[in-house]
Amino acid sequence: MQSTEPSGASPRGGSLSRRGFAVGSVAAAATVAATSAVPAAARDISLAAQTPSASASLSQRCAEVARALLLRGPQDQDLVPSYLKALVGSGLPRSAAPRKKVLVLGAGPAGLVATMLLRRAGHTVTLLEANGNRVGGRIKTFRTGGHEQAEQPFADPRQYAEAGAMRIPESHPLVMALIDHLGVQRQKFRLVDQHADGSAALQTWIHVNGVRVRRADYARDPRRVNRSFGVPRALWDVPSSRILSDALAPVRDEFSTQGADGRRTDKPVQQRIAGWARVIERFGDWSMRRYLSEFAKLDEPTIDLVGCLEDLTSRLPLSFLHSFLDAALINPQTTFWELRGGTAALPDALLKEVRPSLHFNRRVTRIEYWDPNGDHSATSHVSAPGPHVWVDTVSEGRQGPPVREQFTADLAIVTVPFSGLRHIQVAPQMSYGKRRAVTELHYDSATKVVLEFSRRWWEFTEADWKRELDTIEPGLYDAYRTGRAASDGSMLGRHDSVTGERLSDDQRAYYAAYRNVTRDQPAAVGALGGGSVSDNPNRFTFNPSHPVAGSPGGVVLASYTWADDAMRWDAFDDDARYPHALSGLQEIYGQRIEVFYTGAGRTQSWARDPYAYGEASVLLPGQHTELFHDIAAPEGPLRFAGDHTSLKPAWIEGAIESGVRAAIEVHTSS
Amino acid sequence: MQSTEPSGASPRGGSLSRRGFAVGSVAAAATVAATSAVPAAARDISLAAQTPSASASLSQRCAEVARALLLRGPQDQDLVPSYLKALVGSGLPRSAAPRKKVLVLGAGPAGLVATMLLRRAGHTVTLLEANGNRVGGRIKTFRTGGHEQAEQPFADPRQYAEAGAMRIPESHPLVMALIDHLGVQRQKFRLVDQHADGSAALQTWIHVNGVRVRRADYARDPRRVNRSFGVPRALWDVPSSRILSDALAPVRDEFSTQGADGRRTDKPVQQRIAGWARVIERFGDWSMRRYLSEFAKLDEPTIDLVGCLEDLTSRLPLSFLHSFLDAALINPQTTFWELRGGTAALPDALLKEVRPSLHFNRRVTRIEYWDPNGDHSATSHVSAPGPHVWVDTVSEGRQGPPVREQFTADLAIVTVPFSGLRHIQVAPQMSYGKRRAVTELHYDSATKVVLEFSRRWWEFTEADWKRELDTIEPGLYDAYRTGRAASDGSMLGRHDSVTGERLSDDQRAYYAAYRNVTRDQPAAVGALGGGSVSDNPNRFTFNPSHPVAGSPGGVVLASYTWADDAMRWDAFDDDARYPHALSGLQEIYGQRIEVFYTGAGRTQSWARDPYAYGEASVLLPGQHTELFHDIAAPEGPLRFAGDHTSLKPAWIEGAIESGVRAAIEVHTSS
Repeated sequence: MQSTEPSGASPRGGSLSRRGFAVGSVAAAATVAATSAVPAAARDISLAAQTPSASASLSQRCAEVARALLLRGPQDQDLVPSYLKALVGSGLPRSAAPRKKVLVLGAGPAGLVATMLLRRAGHTVTLLEANGNRVGGRIKTFRTGGHEQAEQPFADPRQYAEAGAMRIPESHPLVMALIDHLGVQRQKFRLVDQHADGSAALQTWIHVNGVRVRRADYARDPRRVNRSFGVPRALWDVPSSRILSDALAPVRDEFSTQGADGRRTDKPVQQRIAGWARVIERFGDWSMRRYLSEFAKLDEPTIDLVGCLEDLTSRLPLSFLHSFLDAALINPQTTFWELRGGTAALPDALLKEVRPSLHFNRRVTRIEYWDPNGDHSATSHVSAPGPHVWVDTVSEGRQGPPVREQFTADLAIVTVPFSGLRHIQVAPQMSYGKRRAVTELHYDSATKVVLEFSRRWWEFTEADWKRELDTIEPGLYDAYRTGRAASDGSMLGRHDSVTGERLSDDQRAYYAAYRNVTRDQPAAVGALGGGSVSDNPNRFTFNPSHPVAGSPGGVVLASYTWADDAMRWDAFDDDARYPHALSGLQEIYGQRIEVFYTGAGRTQSWARDPYAYGEASVLLPGQHTELFHDIAAPEGPLRFAGDHTSLKPAWIEGAIESGVRAAIEVHTSS
Repeated sequence: MQSTEPSGASPRGGSLSRRGFAVGSVAAAATVAATSAVPAAARDISLAAQTPSASASLSQRCAEVARALLLRGPQDQDLVPSYLKALVGSGLPRSAAPRKKVLVLGAGPAGLVATMLLRRAGHTVTLLEANGNRVGGRIKTFRTGGHEQAEQPFADPRQYAEAGAMRIPESHPLVMALIDHLGVQRQKFRLVDQHADGSAALQTWIHVNGVRVRRADYARDPRRVNRSFGVPRALWDVPSSRILSDALAPVRDEFSTQGADGRRTDKPVQQRIAGWARVIERFGDWSMRRYLSEFAKLDEPTIDLVGCLEDLTSRLPLSFLHSFLDAALINPQTTFWELRGGTAALPDALLKEVRPSLHFNRRVTRIEYWDPNGDHSATSHVSAPGPHVWVDTVSEGRQGPPVREQFTADLAIVTVPFSGLRHIQVAPQMSYGKRRAVTELHYDSATKVVLEFSRRWWEFTEADWKRELDTIEPGLYDAYRTGRAASDGSMLGRHDSVTGERLSDDQRAYYAAYRNVTRDQPAAVGALGGGSVSDNPNRFTFNPSHPVAGSPGGVVLASYTWADDAMRWDAFDDDARYPHALSGLQEIYGQRIEVFYTGAGRTQSWARDPYAYGEASVLLPGQHTELFHDIAAPEGPLRFAGDHTSLKPAWIEGAIESGVRAAIEVHTSS
């Protein structure tokens, strides 16, 4: 969490006081229609369940979620220093507990970190990974070679792009410390486009409802875009980011205060935890849509504007808390880093630490564990004396017939996403709460399509464009400007810098069929990094923040989508996506970018990935209070890690937090 | 909609009167916290938007949705008779309007019906289908041959199973009339298992939280199952279906009345429309979870019980209205039909009617249409004199290079699901409301896995089991009963009736790796049709309702899942699903069913289907009032059809309704 964040000094209608929250929720409860649909006797019970003791339990759950969010222990103590010490300092705490034989299931960042720490502390660790050649989980870089020995994805073998994690907030202490500790090189990630001196350029596009304006122009004068959504007159001149931050301010006021300069300061820790607990109790079972509509009182067109520009629409039905937290983090005030050579540089470095423990190509199919009170009628490999954990695995069988292999241990750390754990048999049956979480925890879709270009045209000025286009064919620059360039696919990759090996005649035909027909040619961007937003299927695009050393080209993230926006791509086979992605990019930046297209694209649908089973656990309304408590709770000798066991799902930080926590749990277990 | 439905005479706390609804919503609005997050001026506007005229507009929208739901015209008139006349009677109404050249995009049931009716009325129709060999859309039968010339999916070429639509409610008048009109043979679909005489057997299983009880036993004594969820004592003895119907009763009371015998009778039509409109206004932006929790006051364990057994859990965050309507339809009181030879028999019959109009393998990539007020800078193929519609298509290129072909018409009917229309360029830009609906309309996932068995073991008695197992190996019956049968995959398909051609050694290894280890052997089912419910990943299973003539085997729907339950399967490749599906089925019915497994499975993930782009438009909270109005509205010469334009998404009836409506619109257009 950022400790401070700037905010405009707009007129707001005040914020809800703590008392306001309490009054609000009591009043709301009282006004819910008094009649009930369940039998009278049942209703009495159900009302009895609203007694103080049950309320206390809800409050306790909310406080627990608040502490997990802020990485605070049961006594509100800050866990970051002890986690940092374990991760990059003197290692796991001194413990009189015996050294153990430990199984770690899954070699994403959580499993890699836990394995590294436990190995250093002298435990015997076996790390099992279903993937045959790659560790890192949802850290995945499309690149040539690497530890995974990947085939060259792009025409230029130096080029790479991110299938998964791509930006690391500086405010995430564990991942930042780990990166530096391991000597991984980092560089700034430009969330918005910049000039060469690092100042904001905001020359990329907002392209919605047939209107195309530069970000800088929208910030200055949002009226044309806002009116295209039909927002009420009073909001014509308020940028969407301001509308959103104003709408969310009453919630922020619960745990931080806003100074005269507009910057926010966290309240003292106990007030902060209490404030977060109130937020979770009040809005924990609300969707973001309900919050914006019923609490913030935004009307339908305004929610649509904010949703479209601030990337909320596809997640409006999901948890308010998730989108609220992401909105606080993913904004231009946050400093983000990326890793040189790709985010996979982090798993590369971790792999070196754990290599002797690692078994690739071992997909876990069954876990048996010893539970003194369990029903062991369906286990035969575990017993009171030990081993306490037994795991069956099978290989993918890509090289030769499938191999079965079994492993035993004293304890196991399970980092498999619950969406995948759903298909692993566990005996004896785990607790009801855990099984419910495994079944119901919502995993979101996220889909990326990246396209390679032989030149970084987004950094071009108009003069650059004229020079480069006219070397292809005199007058081509003007032909594109006036919509007279050929649209039969023949111009794809026509620049000399494209070898064309990856552009077959069939492909040209498809690209021509799906081409975007626009008669206008927007002016050059001429900036570094950042990206555009569109209401076309691509939705969010990102240009690379930095050149790749030695390469004149670059790989553009042509489409980055979540939830329903991602589902619109996921029905297509991989190959069918590239023409659509190029078309959408052309709609934003103009047809002429096609001359630099190398014909090389890559795409990742996390919901279709048989190792990840979804992008991340983006919770549904209510799941923070109903399920979170049970997600990380141990089951006999089983411990649970992975970003889904943290309150930073989809962030590397959450995975690392959980890996450190689970390593400490195992290390100190008697 | 059914006009009457039985319901138990349980004590309920009365129902909300119309006044209750009104009071409830006013009170709720008044108690929402008074502070607002938007600038003060904006707030004024936003409050101003709550003036009577805006309210009237919401009421109008709700009444419009109510009429669409009940298939009533603007003057509340019943549209069924005129639709039936067009569909199976004298054809489209007499019209002085000219005969036209019409394009129909998409050969699902909506497009097939519209094409058939327009052809009969003398219009020149061209029907374009992206699929290269199959019509029917989400009516899709896994079968050998058929009009699509499918490769044999099962070991027995006579066997077939449904990838999509599988049950047709008798209360759907259009589809029932069309089936009979076309001479398609139908037979009863057994939603719950029956004895040979057609009486309910209820011998299939409810298998949750490690408890396995027959449906009949659960209905008699639900306590053991209910307690396993931790429901409050007062509900220990109330079956989940009763808890749900009681919870939903206040909503039903708005448009129907319950007699002393428990049966419901619809109110007179105007009261019924008004009642539905109130329901839509009150709960249109609620999720089912919110309804059960905040309105029906069910606690968390009870919602989980009802969700698990009544197939609501995965759709709890989606629209209340959708699940409410489905719950009224998918229950044992509804009479369902299926088509002999598979549901594809209906598209087979329709195909004969439209064959000369149909072009296979033509995927629409771009639509241009003439809009007198439109921005035509990006169109060049349409004009005021005509043609008014131009469509570009591309073939899949599976046989030879891709083929481009263009088509023109006076009018077009677009039946493409909006999830697919999202990727089709339309120029000029359609209305804001339509574009928003195309972008935001929620499509759900639905996934099926079917497995073929050489004998219909679900119809077996224990004596049948003993006889058949002991023919394989003396004592095998007892070995399975006592958990001593081999679990290395060698018993798969061991019965003489299985040829084994479809079971390789590698497959046996995978099945063994994923096998379910159970030590118990539940008793035989011995009934026809129906199926079981489990909290394992398979969730809902269905046995075939009838033998296939001449075949001693049958294909079981081993897993039928929606939404998040389906997502848990969708990450796997098709082939990886069958061992899991068999394992889950064995957990319910016992390991011994494996001896009849032929090794043949088929699976369908509708969210991954590049022709369907999702199961159906299962709306999000709020979308009925925010989007529905714009879904079917014309755009210049474009008309819209498909089940998503009806209020019966995912039902063939909705598709046919829309096809008839669009045909009438085109036919009577001047």
